[in-house]
Amino acid sequence: MTTTGLKTLVLELRKFAKDRDWEQFHSPKNLSMALSAEAGELLEHFQWLSEPESSRLDESKKLEVSFEMADILLYLVRLADVLEIDLIDASLKKISLNQKKYPIALSKGTNKKYTGLK
Amino acid sequence: MTTTGLKTLVLELRKFAKDRDWEQFHSPKNLSMALSAEAGELLEHFQWLSEPESSRLDESKKLEVSFEMADILLYLVRLADVLEIDLIDASLKKISLNQKKYPIALSKGTNKKYTGLK
Amino acid sequence: MTTTGLKTLVLELRKFAKDRDWEQFHSPKNLSMALSAEAGELLEHFQWLSEPESSRLDESKKLEVSFEMADILLYLVRLADVLEIDLIDASLKKISLNQKKYPIALSKGTNKKYTGLK
Amino acid sequence: MTTTGLKTLVLELRKFAKDRDWEQFHSPKNLSMALSAEAGELLEHFQWLSEPESSRLDESKKLEVSFEMADILLYLVRLADVLEIDLIDASLKKISLNQKKYPIALSKGTNKKYTGLK
Repeated sequence: MTTTGLKTLVLELRKFAKDRDWEQFHSPKNLSMALSAEAGELLEHFQWLSEPESSRLDESKKLEVSFEMADILLYLVRLADVLEIDLIDASLKKISLNQKKYPIALSKGTNKKYTGLK
Repeated sequence: MTTTGLKTLVLELRKFAKDRDWEQFHSPKNLSMALSAEAGELLEHFQWLSEPESSRLDESKKLEVSFEMADILLYLVRLADVLEIDLIDASLKKISLNQKKYPIALSKGTNKKYTGLK
Repeated sequence: MTTTGLKTLVLELRKFAKDRDWEQFHSPKNLSMALSAEAGELLEHFQWLSEPESSRLDESKKLEVSFEMADILLYLVRLADVLEIDLIDASLKKISLNQKKYPIALSKGTNKKYTGLK
Repeated sequence: MTTTGLKTLVLELRKFAKDRDWEQFHSPKNLSMALSAEAGELLEHFQWLSEPESSRLDESKKLEVSFEMADILLYLVRLADVLEIDLIDASLKKISLNQKKYPIALSKGTNKKYTGLK
């Protein structure tokens, strides 16, 4: 498994920040805020849509949504770089944890939080 | 360039949802909410820290932060899969757009939004 | 019109912060993060519910939701106090602006953003 | 204690929604999303500012921030109305709970979460 996709983004973003002397603004605190603000912009696209409507976006809306998602990924990747966190590795570990937290037999077809499973 | 890293996550998450019959809950609307809620949990780790403190997390805190970031990535990847969006492609396009929005000469060393650049 | 309700909260929160020597942490930046993190916790309660389900919470869930909403109000009130902003006054002005932005004739029964009205 | 301030907002917002036939969109789920999206817009104002900078906004920025805060309050008040929750009452109860969670002697001058107090 390689992670060239994310690695390319890491390098592009490093250069982007360095070229603009923006490393001074990229504290984890600030990056977490920027990421969360972008997550808010993503929400905004869906807030008045029904669930089925949210599944069938027209092309122009889908493009806008894809750029909001890109913004989130870019801040996430930049934050991971600054904190020296391996995103893919952490994600695989998290999937593993979730498999234990939500055993198939107990969680099948229910939207209950793991604390409510029995 | 390959994106095996993200692709692996896509496949794992598809299986995770299918095994639990959770596809019914994974509308883009719902996934955008879950993603944003996780972004809020990330914020919580940094909200009372100064910027320098946010840069030097101890190992236990860093692990917690890495799992919050994993949660964000997992919902982002899942949402992209459901909407049939190529995250890496959208991100590269967004970097390109940002390069035009924030020309080096105008944005060097300033934290102004592009609308305030001149 | 009086705003004793909010004013009481302002005073309680001032005392709460002063007693704990927490004023040093209550920069607008930090308070905006805490507020947003609480908004994320509110989301979490609704993320897997359908819209109709979100309208008929049982008493225990409703109590939890009311406390998340209280957390949001408390940080909002505290932030307004620190920034010397009159929340009620700003809100009445915002309603006025929204009335112009969303004329009844154009916006009746549609979930379109004002930029999409015609 | 009266809560005329918030009560006025409740009534204005009810009329606003009714006039536009928007009650159909105001499920708690949707309102929680709109609220959280507004919290994200608030964050955006502060994300690249240092803490001291966030305390000394110029008048034009302060006005923008006050409108973001108004948006948050308006959705919060509307959500409370739809769910039949008394915001002031819930907030006073929450302050009471916080006083127990953060005893002055243990929490004075520290930014630790209550789970980290000893």
